[in-house]
Amino acid sequence: MSEKAQAVRTVFLKNAPAVAGFASIVGKKEGDGPLGKRFDAVEPDARAGQDSWEKAESTMLRRAIDLACERAGVTPGCVLAGDLLNQCAGSAYGVRGVDAPFFGLYGACSTMAESLGLAALLVDGGHFESAAAATGSHFCSAERQFRFPLEYGGVRTPTAQWTVTGAGCVVLSAEGKGPYITRFTPGKIVDAGIKDMGNMGAAMAPAAYDTLSAHFALTGRGPEYYDVILTGDLGRLGQEILRDLFAADGVDLGANYMDCGVLVYDIGRQDAHCGGSGCGCSASVLSGHFLRGMRDGLWRRVLFAATGALMSPTTSLQGESIPAICHAVAIEAERC
Amino acid sequence: MSEKAQAVRTVFLKNAPAVAGFASIVGKKEGDGPLGKRFDAVEPDARAGQDSWEKAESTMLRRAIDLACERAGVTPGCVLAGDLLNQCAGSAYGVRGVDAPFFGLYGACSTMAESLGLAALLVDGGHFESAAAATGSHFCSAERQFRFPLEYGGVRTPTAQWTVTGAGCVVLSAEGKGPYITRFTPGKIVDAGIKDMGNMGAAMAPAAYDTLSAHFALTGRGPEYYDVILTGDLGRLGQEILRDLFAADGVDLGANYMDCGVLVYDIGRQDAHCGGSGCGCSASVLSGHFLRGMRDGLWRRVLFAATGALMSPTTSLQGESIPAICHAVAIEAERC
Repeated sequence: MSEKAQAVRTVFLKNAPAVAGFASIVGKKEGDGPLGKRFDAVEPDARAGQDSWEKAESTMLRRAIDLACERAGVTPGCVLAGDLLNQCAGSAYGVRGVDAPFFGLYGACSTMAESLGLAALLVDGGHFESAAAATGSHFCSAERQFRFPLEYGGVRTPTAQWTVTGAGCVVLSAEGKGPYITRFTPGKIVDAGIKDMGNMGAAMAPAAYDTLSAHFALTGRGPEYYDVILTGDLGRLGQEILRDLFAADGVDLGANYMDCGVLVYDIGRQDAHCGGSGCGCSASVLSGHFLRGMRDGLWRRVLFAATGALMSPTTSLQGESIPAICHAVAIEAERC
Repeated sequence: MSEKAQAVRTVFLKNAPAVAGFASIVGKKEGDGPLGKRFDAVEPDARAGQDSWEKAESTMLRRAIDLACERAGVTPGCVLAGDLLNQCAGSAYGVRGVDAPFFGLYGACSTMAESLGLAALLVDGGHFESAAAATGSHFCSAERQFRFPLEYGGVRTPTAQWTVTGAGCVVLSAEGKGPYITRFTPGKIVDAGIKDMGNMGAAMAPAAYDTLSAHFALTGRGPEYYDVILTGDLGRLGQEILRDLFAADGVDLGANYMDCGVLVYDIGRQDAHCGGSGCGCSASVLSGHFLRGMRDGLWRRVLFAATGALMSPTTSLQGESIPAICHAVAIEAERC
C-alpha cells in the first residue's frame, strides 16, 4: 500500500467521542459459554417470546439498543445498525419505533465495527450529539438462510463456525468520562480467492491483516501498544492465519491478541468447531466482556477489529470467491 | 414531532462538500424512456457481458463508480454503497478492487440519499477529502429474488412498480465549484401498516412526508424554495398520496415536485404500471438528469429525497407490515 493511500486510511478523532452506554444480550448456548456471566441478559427462549426466529432476532437487538440508551441516558441522535438477514430485516424491524434517524448498514460480521466507527465519525464531526451503534444475529435464522433447514441436521465441516445468537449496542456521546473512540481505520474489500462458505476464517483473515497493518503503520503503534487486540470472528483457524501473516512480517501479535469467535464458546465442550461467528458475536463480546472490563479498569487500550465476509449464497452458487472486510476501532481510557 | 427532536433532525453542513463528479448507466428499457438521452451509458445487454444478472448488476455499478471518480479526478477517500440483493452482494462485488475504504449500506431504494448524505457528513466533518456514494439495481435479479422467476410470467398488479436496471454514483469533495450539499435530513423508520409488497408507493409515502415535513420545519424553507423536490421512487400512486398528505396540512408541493419513478419511464407505452423503483432508479435519474441539469444551469436548488421500503420477502410472508424510510439531501448551486 502506498504512503498516500495509507495517509487517508486512519482517522484520528480530534474530539474522541465517549462511550456513554453499552448493552449485550445473548441466547442460551452463549450464556452457557465461558463469558456467560458477562452479558447483561441471557434469553433462554430461541424465539424470545415471538413467533419466528427472525422476530426473535429483532427483539433481542431492540432490547440491547433500549438498554444501552437507557444507561447512556439519551434518545440517540441517530442509530446505525445492520444484520445478516436478507434486506437487513433484523435491524429494520428491531429499530422500528425508535424515535431517531436510522442509517442501515451491511458489513456482515464486521457490522459492529462499521457501525461503531461511523457513529464515532458522526459525533466527532459535530453532526450528532450522540449515536447508537448496534447489531445482532441469530443462529436459527442465519442457519436456514445461509445453509440448511435446521431439521435437516446437516453435518458441519471442521472449519465451520457457529452463528452467535445475540446482540450488542454501544452508545457514543460527544461528552463523557470515557472510554473514548480515538482512532478509526476503515476497511477495504480484500478477496483472497477463498470460495468455501464453510471456511470464513480463511476468507476474512487477509482483510484483518490488511486493516491492522494499515493501522499499525499509520498510527506508529505496534501490537504491544494495546492491552487487547480483538478480531471479530475469525475463529480458531482464521486467528492462526492472521498470526502467521503477521509473523511473516516479523510481527508477533502476542498474547494480547484475541478473537471474539474463540472466546464466546468453550469450543470443545460446546461443539462449536472453529468458534462463533455472526454480527452478534463481536457485538455481544465487545459490549458484554470488553467494554465492561474497560469500565472496571481491567484494560485501558482495546483495538476492536471486527471482520465480515461479504458473499451471499447466490454469489457462492455462481462460483464467486468471498470478498472480506475488516474495520478497526481504537477504544481507549484516555483521549489522545 | 417535538421541537427538540426536530432540532437534531436536519444537519446544516458548515463546509458544504462539492459534487466533484457523477455518472449514470442504465439498461435498455430505461434507455428507451423519456430520459434515455440523459444517461451516460445505455447497456443493451441484460447480462452486461457477464454470465449472470447479479454479476451484470455489479458490473454496471462499477462502471458508474469508475466514471464518476474519473470525472472527479480522484481515487475516492471512501466508497459508500448498497443495493437490493441479499447480503448487498451487488455492491460488495461491484466495489471489490476499488482501492478505497468501503462502507456497505442498506437503505433499500433510499440508498442513493443515504449514501450521499453520509458521504457529505464524512467530508464535511473533515474525515475524508472525498467520498463516493453509489447504488444500483437490476430488474432481472430483483424480480427473481423478491417476486417470481421471470419465466413464470406472473401478472403484475396495478400498483406494482418496475425495478430499474441502472446505477448511479456521485463523488463529493471538500473543495470544488459545486453544486454543494448544504443540508441533510436523515430519515426515521415510518411504518404506516401497509402489508402489500406490490404497493410500495403507499408504504413509502408516509416516510417521505415525515422527512420532508421535518426538513421544511427546521430549515424554515417551504416547497417553493426548491426548483425541484425529487422523491426517489414513490411512483404514480405514492406521489399522489404524498401530495395529499401535505395538502391536508395546507401545503401545496407545487409543480416542482417530481418523482424519479414517474420520470424514468413513459408509463403507458412502457407498461410500467406505477413507474420505476429500485435503488438504481433515483441513483440514475439524479446523476443522469438532475445533476447534469444543475451543472448546465437549469436548476439551482434540488431537494433529493429517496425513499426505501425495508421489508424482506420473509418478513412479508410472516405477516409483517412494511417499514419505510426517506432521507433528504439538499443540493444547491451555492453554499449557504
